[in-house]
Amino acid sequence: MNLNKNKEAKFDIIALGRACIDLNAVEYNRPMEETMTFSKYVGGSPANIAIGVSKLGLKAGFIGKIPEDQHGNFIKSYMENLGIDTSGMVRDTEGRKVGLAFTEIKSPDECSILMYRENVADLYLEPSEISASYIKQAKLLLISGTALAQSPSREAAIKAVQLARENGVFVAFELDYRPYTWHSEEETAVYYSLVAEQADIVIGTRDEYDMMEGKKGDNEQTVESLFKHHASLVVIKHGSEGSNAYTKNGQIYQAGIYKTKVLKTFGAGDSYASAFLYALFQEKDIETALKYGSASASIVVSKHSSSDAMPQASEIEALIGAK
Amino acid sequence: MNLNKNKEAKFDIIALGRACIDLNAVEYNRPMEETMTFSKYVGGSPANIAIGVSKLGLKAGFIGKIPEDQHGNFIKSYMENLGIDTSGMVRDTEGRKVGLAFTEIKSPDECSILMYRENVADLYLEPSEISASYIKQAKLLLISGTALAQSPSREAAIKAVQLARENGVFVAFELDYRPYTWHSEEETAVYYSLVAEQADIVIGTRDEYDMMEGKKGDNEQTVESLFKHHASLVVIKHGSEGSNAYTKNGQIYQAGIYKTKVLKTFGAGDSYASAFLYALFQEKDIETALKYGSASASIVVSKHSSSDAMPQASEIEALIGAK
Amino acid sequence: MNLNKNKEAKFDIIALGRACIDLNAVEYNRPMEETMTFSKYVGGSPANIAIGVSKLGLKAGFIGKIPEDQHGNFIKSYMENLGIDTSGMVRDTEGRKVGLAFTEIKSPDECSILMYRENVADLYLEPSEISASYIKQAKLLLISGTALAQSPSREAAIKAVQLARENGVFVAFELDYRPYTWHSEEETAVYYSLVAEQADIVIGTRDEYDMMEGKKGDNEQTVESLFKHHASLVVIKHGSEGSNAYTKNGQIYQAGIYKTKVLKTFGAGDSYASAFLYALFQEKDIETALKYGSASASIVVSKHSSSDAMPQASEIEALIGAK
Amino acid sequence: MNLNKNKEAKFDIIALGRACIDLNAVEYNRPMEETMTFSKYVGGSPANIAIGVSKLGLKAGFIGKIPEDQHGNFIKSYMENLGIDTSGMVRDTEGRKVGLAFTEIKSPDECSILMYRENVADLYLEPSEISASYIKQAKLLLISGTALAQSPSREAAIKAVQLARENGVFVAFELDYRPYTWHSEEETAVYYSLVAEQADIVIGTRDEYDMMEGKKGDNEQTVESLFKHHASLVVIKHGSEGSNAYTKNGQIYQAGIYKTKVLKTFGAGDSYASAFLYALFQEKDIETALKYGSASASIVVSKHSSSDAMPQASEIEALIGAK
Repeated sequence: MNLNKNKEAKFDIIALGRACIDLNAVEYNRPMEETMTFSKYVGGSPANIAIGVSKLGLKAGFIGKIPEDQHGNFIKSYMENLGIDTSGMVRDTEGRKVGLAFTEIKSPDECSILMYRENVADLYLEPSEISASYIKQAKLLLISGTALAQSPSREAAIKAVQLARENGVFVAFELDYRPYTWHSEEETAVYYSLVAEQADIVIGTRDEYDMMEGKKGDNEQTVESLFKHHASLVVIKHGSEGSNAYTKNGQIYQAGIYKTKVLKTFGAGDSYASAFLYALFQEKDIETALKYGSASASIVVSKHSSSDAMPQASEIEALIGAK
Repeated sequence: MNLNKNKEAKFDIIALGRACIDLNAVEYNRPMEETMTFSKYVGGSPANIAIGVSKLGLKAGFIGKIPEDQHGNFIKSYMENLGIDTSGMVRDTEGRKVGLAFTEIKSPDECSILMYRENVADLYLEPSEISASYIKQAKLLLISGTALAQSPSREAAIKAVQLARENGVFVAFELDYRPYTWHSEEETAVYYSLVAEQADIVIGTRDEYDMMEGKKGDNEQTVESLFKHHASLVVIKHGSEGSNAYTKNGQIYQAGIYKTKVLKTFGAGDSYASAFLYALFQEKDIETALKYGSASASIVVSKHSSSDAMPQASEIEALIGAK
Repeated sequence: MNLNKNKEAKFDIIALGRACIDLNAVEYNRPMEETMTFSKYVGGSPANIAIGVSKLGLKAGFIGKIPEDQHGNFIKSYMENLGIDTSGMVRDTEGRKVGLAFTEIKSPDECSILMYRENVADLYLEPSEISASYIKQAKLLLISGTALAQSPSREAAIKAVQLARENGVFVAFELDYRPYTWHSEEETAVYYSLVAEQADIVIGTRDEYDMMEGKKGDNEQTVESLFKHHASLVVIKHGSEGSNAYTKNGQIYQAGIYKTKVLKTFGAGDSYASAFLYALFQEKDIETALKYGSASASIVVSKHSSSDAMPQASEIEALIGAK
Repeated sequence: MNLNKNKEAKFDIIALGRACIDLNAVEYNRPMEETMTFSKYVGGSPANIAIGVSKLGLKAGFIGKIPEDQHGNFIKSYMENLGIDTSGMVRDTEGRKVGLAFTEIKSPDECSILMYRENVADLYLEPSEISASYIKQAKLLLISGTALAQSPSREAAIKAVQLARENGVFVAFELDYRPYTWHSEEETAVYYSLVAEQADIVIGTRDEYDMMEGKKGDNEQTVESLFKHHASLVVIKHGSEGSNAYTKNGQIYQAGIYKTKVLKTFGAGDSYASAFLYALFQEKDIETALKYGSASASIVVSKHSSSDAMPQASEIEALIGAK
């Protein structure tokens, strides 16, 4: 799988899904009840990944729906300042808001999020707002699982995958399971299967694959089942145990984690995906790409935000080299 | 494609989707405003097809959700009296109702339907109510397009297709496009494509394929695109112009229609599908199967109902032979 | 209380609320599962009352929302043919339907109704569709309790009452409690109290007053509480035990029922209210008005429909006289 | 009107309605896009009024619904720390959130609020959660108009007013019009009229009374119309022009405003109502009560928050005395 095979493509990655606002506790190591001030950051898995790969030097675009309000304006200009193309970003005209995530950081082990996801703009992206001509300009389309959680965003995401497949654009699927927007686990399993079967690259935690399969699975069954369909590279993450990558031709790769002083656990998955995909675009081997993912995650969990904290390539390489 | 390859299967066909009540004008050739009495019949495309194939001698089962009320009871016992297995029929416990279709028959050319489809029970079939062990007992699973129109019935139908595919059960997809339950044409296109790509047999009118493709298509493009995926037999109907069948190996078949004294146009599609599938199960050639479909449609449009009027095999064969 | 005090008024009664379709079992004395044919009638309490008083010779108007479909057309023309003014009838433009009531008549004691009330047009009457100039033309505004069951019909009904009060139009409130459209009993109690306190005439069964008061009440407490507010005439019905009327000045009247061969119990309340109000407009004394109500109810329960069966004054008077 | 007539009452004021979170710009005099930090305060008109009167020394209770989350906990403990009784506060068990108000302070003249009010807990207070025995313990029940904007909070508020009236508890109605939760202006007019007619004290801006009356009104018509019903004291506020109070016996009082260095305009109405009601409980004359209201508003608009900034009586009196 050579992600750079389409040399004419304007974008390395177009990410599709939610862009939100994180409100991170300024005073931490305490329950949120005692946090009196919050800092504002861009958040949301696919937005974070677009930010992450842009900071690493890839050319990224973003497809999503944001409101016509101050939070929407902030997200758009923040992403544009990083060089992300926002021409696929649609403004909601129905008064819907961006999702909010208030973070509570009691200790490195006890983090939680208070979500505002009621009728948020991102879930109202319409299939009619997905443009074939835009998707054709990418080498890879990244779909985040939460975009599948509700109609019409669900149909917009599936249509984007259909258009990518028809036009020879690679599809990466980050499972990104967030229970609060789904109706039932069966529903999640149906759509996760549908999109995973059509993706070239699938990335998720073991728990997320279990959700997709509707049972406690094992890694070998998971990859065997996916390789019957379109997938050719599957990454399964095991938290502090590290992660594995499997390829259709039967190779298995493994990586550990980089120890750090953890402030909070948010943002680990998005930084992992950003750096892993970046390394693939740099045509590193898969084992090295796993290290990039792990190192990037390690850097982000030691810092206050998920998006602002996305590292430069040099920081990642320093950490890998230092090991 | 030998539909009988699984000789152990308990059912020839399991149909999935809506079972409704038709309220047909007793006094016709007038606007419905002047119709003062209505006759009650079982209706709904997949229910009609299950009834049609049962009357022709196939062994059928039905998966769908019906209310715990008098109309639900009537549907269940009507289908059981014809020998249809209803063990996959689920009772709604939330007070939802069956859909209703009041027919208006002004003249053979001017028929219309007044639909009651608000929050109907059939669209609330849950994916958790779909059983792999039941689907495995069929040779063929028939999905009607309307089951895809809303969640959670949509996920139930997709899950049934996934289970059929995993278990070697053939899938037939009757497009059965009814605009009133869909949110947008783009949404229809997304789900029609998804299921058509996974079906072995696809049956629809030219207009329905246009809906799936989001453009005025031509037959050759349609079949070329479907044959890239799983489909191996595609039927395209052209109303009074007859119908065509296309096979993956490049054969094209054609059939005309059987002239009759038309009372109303309702029920033509369901009777067509029933008799076409019956003929395939009888291992008739495809050209003959198209004739069975056309003859059965011709018989039903000359009668008052869609379900009660489903013909015996001998009636169909008499009409074909008489030509 | 002289209902005819405004001699200039164009209408005796304007009724506000739902107009529906009754589908009455043609074959009865059996469960609905075995009823294969249904007859179509106009139904819905305030529509029935408008029909009842029109047939008795009063001048009536109707305010309500009906769909732009065949059932809506039928209702409108049926009422117009009886001389009811429909200029206050609004057409729904959102594709909503009229409510349906399938009647099941197992025996005179075992009648039930299968209701279709999901998103029905009548509950979408908007307060902006209520016209002060229309309401001013009535001597009496009749509100049926079901109009209060959901927004925006609820606000339309309350606004109509406010306009009637400001313009010296009498208000009659028929409690007409139908549990299926209400969210909770507390909600019913809140709105029943609000409107009963502003009405001049309140008519209901003992059970309905209990619903309004949120407890098993007694008649004296009920009328004492209502007479603290605007009401001056309260009718409490006790089914086969007859009915009572109470006036603010302390009078109590009582009437029995007229024995008949009961076919079904539907329509008894609407015919009672029609004839009782008619008698008041005829300036009969209250005791006589109660007899009119009872006699009319007795006639309707012996017949097949609720609206078509509404009697002429001569039929009522014959029955009263015969006693 | 002697607010202290019930000397046994446990609470001076019970306020009913929303308690929310204000997120106030830490960096101000700029558009919100450039504000990167927000401070958290309790907000919502009736919560602010309960806080305001408590800080002035009255005994207050609060009826409302808050979530079982960190923001809900913060609101509850903040109010309890000020001595407010929260035994009438109900916890939402359906995962609903508190409303949020992000403030944008561009300049003293250009303030705006970005509201999160989608499916907020406060609008789900149920009438069954309103207790007669609790309301009986108050001298005065304060209803904020926003509680009337949606069911079931609407019915809960109306039921509370009914119970207050039945039990001799005074009712104050603060119109508090916020367009974002209402369906239509006609709907607002219906419920504002209903509650204003049952209140003893009505407080609002001229614009809010116009909303209630559905037209540009004048003060004299407004009070004449209200005094036909239950009201005996009506306050009409005119922004920088000051405010007027009208009594049923025909007196008119007037007050100006106290000049200050305005930071933002939020919170002016709540602080006004708190101090005005406090002065009435102190049995000040109405003219003095208006001064208390104006002085308190002046203090709050010069400070960063709406709730935390509520003044002590001594601050108000110093400002009045200084004039």
